[in-house]
Amino acid sequence: MREHFEVRTYDGAGRLGKLTVPRSGVTVETPALLPVVNPHVQTISPAQLESEFGAEILITNSYIIHGSDDLREPALEEGLHDVLGFSGAIMTDSGSFQLSEYGDIDVTTTEILQFQQEIGSDIATPVDIPTPPDVSREHAEDEWATTRERLDVAESVDTGEMLVTAPIQGSTHPELRERAAREAAETDLDLFPIGAVVPLMNEYRFADLVDVVAASKRGLPEDAPVHLFGAGHPMMFALAAALGCDLFDSAAYALYARDDRYLTVRGTKHLDDLTYFPCECPVCSEHTPEEVQALGEEGRHRLLAEHNLAVTFGEIRRIKQAIHSGNLLELVETRIRGHPTLVDGYRTLLDYADQLEATDPITKDSFFYLSADSARRPEVSRHHDRLARLDVPDDVLLTTGQQSDRYDASWRLVPPFGPVPRSLSDVYPLTAESPERLDRAAYEAAATGVERLVEDNPETEFTVVHDGWPAVALHRIPDRVTVYDLDTDSGDE
Amino acid sequence: MREHFEVRTYDGAGRLGKLTVPRSGVTVETPALLPVVNPHVQTISPAQLESEFGAEILITNSYIIHGSDDLREPALEEGLHDVLGFSGAIMTDSGSFQLSEYGDIDVTTTEILQFQQEIGSDIATPVDIPTPPDVSREHAEDEWATTRERLDVAESVDTGEMLVTAPIQGSTHPELRERAAREAAETDLDLFPIGAVVPLMNEYRFADLVDVVAASKRGLPEDAPVHLFGAGHPMMFALAAALGCDLFDSAAYALYARDDRYLTVRGTKHLDDLTYFPCECPVCSEHTPEEVQALGEEGRHRLLAEHNLAVTFGEIRRIKQAIHSGNLLELVETRIRGHPTLVDGYRTLLDYADQLEATDPITKDSFFYLSADSARRPEVSRHHDRLARLDVPDDVLLTTGQQSDRYDASWRLVPPFGPVPRSLSDVYPLTAESPERLDRAAYEAAATGVERLVEDNPETEFTVVHDGWPAVALHRIPDRVTVYDLDTDSGDE
Repeated sequence: MREHFEVRTYDGAGRLGKLTVPRSGVTVETPALLPVVNPHVQTISPAQLESEFGAEILITNSYIIHGSDDLREPALEEGLHDVLGFSGAIMTDSGSFQLSEYGDIDVTTTEILQFQQEIGSDIATPVDIPTPPDVSREHAEDEWATTRERLDVAESVDTGEMLVTAPIQGSTHPELRERAAREAAETDLDLFPIGAVVPLMNEYRFADLVDVVAASKRGLPEDAPVHLFGAGHPMMFALAAALGCDLFDSAAYALYARDDRYLTVRGTKHLDDLTYFPCECPVCSEHTPEEVQALGEEGRHRLLAEHNLAVTFGEIRRIKQAIHSGNLLELVETRIRGHPTLVDGYRTLLDYADQLEATDPITKDSFFYLSADSARRPEVSRHHDRLARLDVPDDVLLTTGQQSDRYDASWRLVPPFGPVPRSLSDVYPLTAESPERLDRAAYEAAATGVERLVEDNPETEFTVVHDGWPAVALHRIPDRVTVYDLDTDSGDE
Repeated sequence: MREHFEVRTYDGAGRLGKLTVPRSGVTVETPALLPVVNPHVQTISPAQLESEFGAEILITNSYIIHGSDDLREPALEEGLHDVLGFSGAIMTDSGSFQLSEYGDIDVTTTEILQFQQEIGSDIATPVDIPTPPDVSREHAEDEWATTRERLDVAESVDTGEMLVTAPIQGSTHPELRERAAREAAETDLDLFPIGAVVPLMNEYRFADLVDVVAASKRGLPEDAPVHLFGAGHPMMFALAAALGCDLFDSAAYALYARDDRYLTVRGTKHLDDLTYFPCECPVCSEHTPEEVQALGEEGRHRLLAEHNLAVTFGEIRRIKQAIHSGNLLELVETRIRGHPTLVDGYRTLLDYADQLEATDPITKDSFFYLSADSARRPEVSRHHDRLARLDVPDDVLLTTGQQSDRYDASWRLVPPFGPVPRSLSDVYPLTAESPERLDRAAYEAAATGVERLVEDNPETEFTVVHDGWPAVALHRIPDRVTVYDLDTDSGDE
């Protein structure tokens, strides 16, 4: 058991949790956003992050502090919290990013962990090797072996109450990511960043990202807090949270602002392309794009960073509320319409419906059928599994129309779920709300439910009465079932 | 020509416009939101609506003022703008709502129009009959005849520079709505509220709402400013704007607040059900739900009203920016995932793709294919129509794979559009971005494009090379076309 992390509520694989950070005596609610604070350039001060944006935790770079004559001594003498003016939890990175950018850094894992300990970091990071996407399996395995050794080193360093991360690498090889996650979890390290995914996000490769995250999660126990390292764009937070990512960090809020770019949950806009601010944050309520465009560089970048942070924290709150209400996948269905590549990400997420189902609560508030993709949600396959466990009499009517006493049992037939015995009619998810104009996927999923029930009950005689279901769905119903179409058949059955 | 209204930009049937309100010398940018100000109870003062929320126009009820001893004399003496403390445009309602609620009111159209003129209203309303949904055609026609007569009366009243509305009624009978709109537009009245749709919105009957609005729009000329009367929930603004509604009014911001209800673009929440505020407006950035729940009634309702207004005005800005960028339907695709009934609304909207196509710009920024519904967007059918006008040589390859010189012409085959001649490859919408994992609707639409091209060119020999298209799509390709599947055929083709 990792005692510093507690999951309070699940929704699919998404979860609300509490990360206890003993060194600072702070408890961080997850999913949480860690704003990245550049120790040299602070667009928004850590104090403002805390008081105005509600940041409970931030991340800064110990390697930069270590290498800076201006910063090193004050950090060692006063400690990071005083230097930054931040009372929440402080996580520090180790220079791995610099390693990946410049090929070489001048500290070892032991040195940088000890330094992080000395400057008062609450969560420290060893020097892992951020293996980029698309390298060969052999290359990725070799680099993981090195990272793995450094986790052993990290375990051996005396870090007191400070939490230490165990980064998961493995490039775009899911099996290796899963193995790396398992090996990382076998250490006594505390927090699990999924590393080197920034290139996937920058290239909008959300399907590949989902494969990597899902694989990493399969290798981790449920009580492992997971950090999607470098994930700073709010357009993909909901998708990542639905997989069970607990921590996000954003350098984007400041980096994008410096490039006059404006974050939204539906993508990035350039300030010059905006005539109206599509947002209700304080900056966007009080200013017009024209006003902000007319400001000097500093004022402009500051207001954009404030907007970017507001929408980033706002999305974290929306995700938390959605998990709390049990409708995170409904939020995901909305978010993925921000970009076609996010649609691919969601379709890939639903490939792992079983993985989501494992922790999904049995009952939630409501199920909204919002697109053909909804037919692949874990609730649908769970219902099909449940059908296999039902007692079924000799002669059963499954109908979208009126019930009938002429059968031993008469059940409703409800897309996308399929057969619904009366006992389950008022039970989640069979209380789902669906459009009247359904897509074929809903009928096909319902027909698959019929198929499952019929195959599991070879002795039972089944009659299906439907209202004009499409052929692609009817093809799934076994031949031995008597099928009537209310829309075309003459009808006394 | 209605000189007081000018459309500046279209996106589908949605538009950015300018409504010139001569009596107050104000120009209102549309789509615009008119907050409803109750002359007795002002949760948010008109001055605050103007300064903090950017309201350029509001609506209040002249009938209430007429019937109130406290309000009538000051309004007559000082004028509405001074009484309310609002320098923007003021529209006034006439008591029609009270008529529909209580069955009787004590003013005539002439009296109430003259009163509106006397108190300094900028846009006045006659006493129309708000015929509810689902009444018989005969009933609706009878009531429309009465409303129609009152429009004649309104035309005859001397109202000076004041604009006067011509409400469109007709219950849920589209043909009658269309006729009513045509007859309303034949008057010299100025602004066209689509009336009595609140019951449809309250019951989430968005498909019926779309039918009513689309019919009304068909009866109106393009230069008619259209007010969706009583539409105050931001979850459906984008859908209504996509049909060409220019004005919305919100009593909801205050009424919902008084009931502790919290508006979002994805639906309504009750304050008690919120643990996190899913919003970045100033209220939600500065407070937690727990804090607001703990306030007294007045403070709670005031903060909720401020939030509700912020999100309502924010959505109007998002819609304006989307029309400006030419991606309003992408916003609609996102919004309709808020509720299954909105999905029905969008599917019904796409029944009117031709109506949207009529004013849709030829070129826009980008086309995102975001769901099977995207295959029914007006851009797809426009491309199919365009195929019919192309010169086609004798022997044409249409391929999702490599081009070939062995044909007179070799064109790309791109779902959902179908055949794409090289000359159009870089032209909107053929630069569309689509998920890699496409739904069948995209292939079917592409196959329909092939079908159109083949049928329009009986002398041409066509070869189709596809990469595993589904059978439902391939069935649409005429038999005389030679078809190869890259995924299964051995293929020197």
